[in-house]
Amino acid sequence: MQSSNSNEVENYRVRKLEISDKSKGFIELLQQLTVCNFVSDQEFRDRFQELSLCGDDHVICVIEDDHSGKIVATGSVFIEKKFIRNCSKVGHIEDVVVDSNARGLQLGKKVVTYLTDHARSMGCYKVILDCSVDNREFYEKCGFKQKEVQMAKYFI
Amino acid sequence: MQSSNSNEVENYRVRKLEISDKSKGFIELLQQLTVCNFVSDQEFRDRFQELSLCGDDHVICVIEDDHSGKIVATGSVFIEKKFIRNCSKVGHIEDVVVDSNARGLQLGKKVVTYLTDHARSMGCYKVILDCSVDNREFYEKCGFKQKEVQMAKYFI
Repeated sequence: MQSSNSNEVENYRVRKLEISDKSKGFIELLQQLTVCNFVSDQEFRDRFQELSLCGDDHVICVIEDDHSGKIVATGSVFIEKKFIRNCSKVGHIEDVVVDSNARGLQLGKKVVTYLTDHARSMGCYKVILDCSVDNREFYEKCGFKQKEVQMAKYFI
Repeated sequence: MQSSNSNEVENYRVRKLEISDKSKGFIELLQQLTVCNFVSDQEFRDRFQELSLCGDDHVICVIEDDHSGKIVATGSVFIEKKFIRNCSKVGHIEDVVVDSNARGLQLGKKVVTYLTDHARSMGCYKVILDCSVDNREFYEKCGFKQKEVQMAKYFI
């Protein structure tokens, strides 16, 4: 018999994004992160297929709440191949978000750990990400340290 | 007849990395940026081919000094495909470096402009990069603005 604690852990496993996750609130979850307009089923399938072509070089993971059947956390990592450091690689973590109704369950940490472990397994010498100053403490708890500053140029 | 000024401009055109650029000091140039150990011809070819498979989604550009035949500036950009912002894309600029003997010729700006233009032409809604605080002013002159902070976790 499982304890309620292990049951809770079991309810929040990290897995790769599946095409059926669109109907489980994946896009709505991204809307909690940033601008994420309506995406049609066809647009979702097309982008999903494009990303699938990258294989392990671009992984999007999700956590599905087994009770509600909703996606409650996600994050992505892509592997950049370089010439520096003896033709090494760098993992770039992007678009980490946890459902505002599922905070306090360490789901963000689970997602970041999954993506970090993937980057390590792919031979990356480091994994990096950009975040707001407000989120710095969270990533420090995940073992990250502030290094540089992010610069951006918007086209729209 | 060209003026010496247009001759100088002509000597520093930006183009995509070619496999023959290894013998023109490409790796030695990267060594001015960061740790870049010895890369064998085979390792260079293998990585070059891997990156070629990404096509326009991962472009490394260089500037060759037509007089010396040496690569004097480089930078790269890769295109990340997202679901946010109506399945938009983001350009990530990496590994921009100018030969210490070729400073003051605006080669860094040429490289960044080339990579930025490529990201725009690929349909990105923004282009981003991470840099040291010391280099912030240079990127501001290129039209970038500071947005977030970069966090990193090293595996080695």
